[in-house]
Amino acid sequence: MNVQDEILKMGRQARAAAHALARMSSDEKNAVLHAMADEIVARRAELQAENEKDLVAGKKAGLSAAMLDRLALTDSRIDGMAQGLRDVAALPDPVGEDLKSWVRPNGLHIQKIRVPIGVIGIIYESRPNVTADAAGLCFKTSNAVILRGGKEALHSNQAIAVALQAGGEKAGMPANAVQLVPTTDREAVRYLVQMTGYLDLVIPRGGESLIHAVAEMSHVPVIKHYKGVCHTYVDESADLAQALEISVNAKCQRPGVCNAMETLVVHQGVAAQFLPDLAARMVAEGVELRGDEGARAVVPEMKEATESDWGEEYLDLILAVRVVPGLNAAVDHINQYGSQHSDAIVAESKEAQAAFTRQVDSATVYVNASTRFTDGGEFGMGAEIGISTDKLHARGPMGLEELTTYKYVILGEGQIRE
Amino acid sequence: MNVQDEILKMGRQARAAAHALARMSSDEKNAVLHAMADEIVARRAELQAENEKDLVAGKKAGLSAAMLDRLALTDSRIDGMAQGLRDVAALPDPVGEDLKSWVRPNGLHIQKIRVPIGVIGIIYESRPNVTADAAGLCFKTSNAVILRGGKEALHSNQAIAVALQAGGEKAGMPANAVQLVPTTDREAVRYLVQMTGYLDLVIPRGGESLIHAVAEMSHVPVIKHYKGVCHTYVDESADLAQALEISVNAKCQRPGVCNAMETLVVHQGVAAQFLPDLAARMVAEGVELRGDEGARAVVPEMKEATESDWGEEYLDLILAVRVVPGLNAAVDHINQYGSQHSDAIVAESKEAQAAFTRQVDSATVYVNASTRFTDGGEFGMGAEIGISTDKLHARGPMGLEELTTYKYVILGEGQIRE
Repeated sequence: MNVQDEILKMGRQARAAAHALARMSSDEKNAVLHAMADEIVARRAELQAENEKDLVAGKKAGLSAAMLDRLALTDSRIDGMAQGLRDVAALPDPVGEDLKSWVRPNGLHIQKIRVPIGVIGIIYESRPNVTADAAGLCFKTSNAVILRGGKEALHSNQAIAVALQAGGEKAGMPANAVQLVPTTDREAVRYLVQMTGYLDLVIPRGGESLIHAVAEMSHVPVIKHYKGVCHTYVDESADLAQALEISVNAKCQRPGVCNAMETLVVHQGVAAQFLPDLAARMVAEGVELRGDEGARAVVPEMKEATESDWGEEYLDLILAVRVVPGLNAAVDHINQYGSQHSDAIVAESKEAQAAFTRQVDSATVYVNASTRFTDGGEFGMGAEIGISTDKLHARGPMGLEELTTYKYVILGEGQIRE
Repeated sequence: MNVQDEILKMGRQARAAAHALARMSSDEKNAVLHAMADEIVARRAELQAENEKDLVAGKKAGLSAAMLDRLALTDSRIDGMAQGLRDVAALPDPVGEDLKSWVRPNGLHIQKIRVPIGVIGIIYESRPNVTADAAGLCFKTSNAVILRGGKEALHSNQAIAVALQAGGEKAGMPANAVQLVPTTDREAVRYLVQMTGYLDLVIPRGGESLIHAVAEMSHVPVIKHYKGVCHTYVDESADLAQALEISVNAKCQRPGVCNAMETLVVHQGVAAQFLPDLAARMVAEGVELRGDEGARAVVPEMKEATESDWGEEYLDLILAVRVVPGLNAAVDHINQYGSQHSDAIVAESKEAQAAFTRQVDSATVYVNASTRFTDGGEFGMGAEIGISTDKLHARGPMGLEELTTYKYVILGEGQIRE
C-alpha cells in the first residue's frame, strides 16, 4: 500500500473508532487508562530494548547530547508515562458536561453539551513519552488519535503505541482509537493534515519550523504555539522590590522555556531608580542585557539593543530592555513585538492594571506575578496537551476541556416551525 | 498601489482599529450602532441610487430574477438594515464576561474572560444587506471587520460601508473598524485570507464553491458551513402522527434552506404503517419521493433511490427515504452521509433518544422536533452571523458569543515560580 492510501486507511479507522468511543462511559474509559499504564510498566524491558535501537542510531547520526537525553526511556520516564495515564484517569471527564441549557417560548428545551472533537492528529518531535501522554489525554476525552512522532524515536514510539493498544484493548478500548503513523516518510504528514473528511484537528508540537510547515499545508484546523516572546512591564506605580523579584524569576528561573521573559519594559519615571538594581541582579545571574537608548542612559554598561532584539525569543540568559514614556507605549510595544503568549505588568495602580489587562492582546496577562506560571499544571488543569497562542477554540494552556467541542441537543414534543 | 499592498494596508489598519476597539465601553459601542442605523436611513436615496447602478449592470449581465431580487435595496430592506443594527445594540455585550475564575493554592487569582477575536474577514455573495448585518455584529463584539462582498453588489456595498463609517465615526467609532475591500479583483480574496499577521478569522458565506475555495487557500482559521444534509429518523417507538407532522414540516415548510430535511430514515418495524400515510401527505405537498428497496416494498410508487441520493442536498421538494433495521443503522447512515448540521429522531423511548443524541455527530440533534429550528433567532441568540458545521470554536448557529474568544487574566501579589 502506498503512503497516501495507508494514511487514508488510518483516517477511516480513526473515524470508526471515534464513533465507538462516543458510546463509552467515564468508568470504562478510566479502566482502559489504567490498563494502558499497567502494560507500559509490564513491557519495560521491551520498551527499553526498542529505545536502545533509537539511541544507537541517534549516536551514529550525531545527535547532540541534549537530543539523546530527550530520547532516552529511562526507568523514571517509563514510570512517569504510567503515572501520567493514571493521573489522567483520576481527572474529571469533561465529556457530557451540560454547558448551558434554556427553554424557548415554544417549549423547545435546548442543551449545549460538551462532546469529543472526533479525530485528532498530534505531530511531535523527539520525546517518546509524548506518545503516551497525548494518547491518554485524547482517549480520556473520547477522541481517536493519530500520532506522528519524530523519526529518531520511531522504534520507541512504536513499542509504546503497541503497549497502549494491547493494554487498552484488554480493557475494552475500541480498535484503532490510538494509532501511530508507522512510516517516517515526510509526505505522510501532508496526507495526514489534508485529510479533511477524517481528521478534525491537528496539534503540532515542536520547533517553529515544524509548526510553520504544518500550519501552511494543513486543510484541517491547527492549534499551535510558535514561540513565547514574553514581556514584563514595570509601571511607575510598581512596588520596585516586587518588580525586581518578578523580573529575575521570569528571566532566570528556567530561561529555555516559552513562558520565560525575553523583554523588560520600564516606565521612564522609575527607570533611574529601578534599572541599576535590576542590572546588578541580572549580571550576577549571568544575564546579558541589551538596552535601548533610554536604558543605556541609566546603565551604560548594557549592550545596545537593535530592532531585531524586539520580538526575539532568546531562550537564553539574554534580556532586552526598553524604557517607555508610559503605559500606552508599553502596551503598543507588547502588541507589536510580542507573541500573544504571556505578558505581565507590575503596578500598584488599579487603573494601570485594568488598562494593561484589557489592552494587551495575549493569551495570559499577569498582574504582579511572574510569566513563568503559564502552564497547565500551574493553572490546576491537571494535564496539558500544549499551549495555544492562537485565538480560535483554545488559548493559553490546553487541558482536557480544550480537547472537546459541543453540540446542541434539543428536546421537543412535536414542535414544528410556523 | 497594487492589490496585495492595498489588502495589507487594510490589514494593518484593521489591527490598529482592533486595539482601539478594546478600549470602548458597551455604551459607547451601542451609541455607534444607533448612529450607523440613523445614517443608513438618512442616506436612503443615495443607497438606492448606487443600488440602481448594480441592478442595471446585473440586468445587462443577465442575472436571474432571483439574483436581482436578492440584490435590490428596497425601502423595507433599508429599514431592515437599520433595525438590525438597533436590535444588535439592544443585545447584551458578551465582551468582558467572566467565564470562570478560581484561586490557586499559591494565591494566584485566575480569571478566564471573554474578549474580542480581533480582526474578522467576512466574504459573502450577492445580498448587500449582509454588509450592515456583519459589520454590526463584529462591531458589537469589538472586532474590526474587513468585508468582501460579491462583485455584482459593489456599488451598493460601498455606499452602505460609507454610511456605516460616516455614522459610526460621528459617534466615536475608531477609524477603519469597518472596511470594505474596494476591488472585485479575485486575487484580493487570496491576499486577504493569507494575511496571517493581521487577520484572525475568516467567515465565508455563500455557495459551496466559494466556501471550498476560501477554505483551501486560507492560512487563517475559517469557520464555515458547506451544506445541510439533514435527516429525520422515525424510530419504532415513535408517535407516528407526530412523526408525520415533523417530517412534512422539515421537508416542506421551506425546502430551499440548509436546515430542511433531505433524507427520511424509518425503522423497519413501523415502515409498513408509517410510509403509506407519509407518501400520501408528501405527494399532496408536491414532493418527489426516492426510496430504497425497503421503502419501495411498502410504497412501490416511489422512484428508486441510488447511492448518490444519500448525502444529496436537494434544496427542493425531493425526499430520499430509507428503511433501516434499527437505531444503530440509522445512526451509521447519518454519520456517513450527513453533513453534521441538523438531524432529528422521533421516538418515545428514552433509551432510543439518549442513544441517538449521544451518537449522532452533528452540530444540532433534535428529539421530537423539526430540524427547521436550527437558526440563531429560533435559538434565542438575537442575531446570527451564520451556521457552523465545523467542530472547532463554534458549532451550529453563531451569534455574538461565537465572535469572541477568551484570555486569562491572572492577579498576583508578587508570586514567583519556585
